[in-house]
Amino acid sequence: MDTTFITTDALLAQWQGHRRLTRRVIEAFPDDKLFTYSIGGMRPFAELAMEMLRMAVPGLKAMITGKWQTWEELTISHPMPNTKNDILRKWDEVTEEIHWWWNQIPEDRFHEQITSLSGQYEGPTHTCPVFLSILYLIDNEIHHRAQGYVYLRSLDIEPPLFWERN
Amino acid sequence: MDTTFITTDALLAQWQGHRRLTRRVIEAFPDDKLFTYSIGGMRPFAELAMEMLRMAVPGLKAMITGKWQTWEELTISHPMPNTKNDILRKWDEVTEEIHWWWNQIPEDRFHEQITSLSGQYEGPTHTCPVFLSILYLIDNEIHHRAQGYVYLRSLDIEPPLFWERN
Repeated sequence: MDTTFITTDALLAQWQGHRRLTRRVIEAFPDDKLFTYSIGGMRPFAELAMEMLRMAVPGLKAMITGKWQTWEELTISHPMPNTKNDILRKWDEVTEEIHWWWNQIPEDRFHEQITSLSGQYEGPTHTCPVFLSILYLIDNEIHHRAQGYVYLRSLDIEPPLFWERN
Repeated sequence: MDTTFITTDALLAQWQGHRRLTRRVIEAFPDDKLFTYSIGGMRPFAELAMEMLRMAVPGLKAMITGKWQTWEELTISHPMPNTKNDILRKWDEVTEEIHWWWNQIPEDRFHEQITSLSGQYEGPTHTCPVFLSILYLIDNEIHHRAQGYVYLRSLDIEPPLFWERN
């Protein structure tokens, strides 16, 4: 038995739901702590959020073209904003862009092989199906967002509800 | 366009890959810190790992039957082990059980509605398709495991590579 678990439309909706939650985590940080607060030598949450933004649309473009930008190119094309509001504005732009680029992925493409993340990102460099490479983008967001939950808790700030995605 | 993103077989493989990584995170903790170390009033990682274990197979059974055990019942049927090795042994048993129960889910069931998590777990109590309820189990594991990464970093322990799933 090997049947559809989730469709492409439902997976996009699931990702955008996760992104709404991540947006609330960004919002929950005090403006300064977003850029400065860290535990155990890890990156501040603004850096983690920018990683998500640098991987999302460039990642989807790479799914289509098979070509990845270097991390250096991405930090130039997506520089760190100066304020929380600027990050949130960027976040909302990317929400629209993800939606648009998702619909440019040809139906068959999701099951073709791609040399994933290509060593330019922290991540697997092996060849895998496009759908697994997309799941990596989402899993990476869940992973880093959860680290923001710990930062918030240690700042004595109640994080947003994990299961609230609207 | 709305086509298969991922099949049931591939999703199970993806989950088991995540579970191999979570197992390595459990292993990375010193025996005592696994049960005692905490940041910001959060639960020690042993408690987070036990939440994953209490939700996995009982969750899959609920996907089939629509009936959820209460959290109290689950803490009685899945008590906290005394040692790291006992948690790892339980983890490996559940690896097999997940595989077995997954194959008991009728093909059509993944797309039927279920009243999810039923207020017995932290989680959404709304009605959603079974596949979204299963994704919740996996996302919850990624989320709590990432909190373990912060615990490890703050203990000056290098966590396992996020993208290594073998």
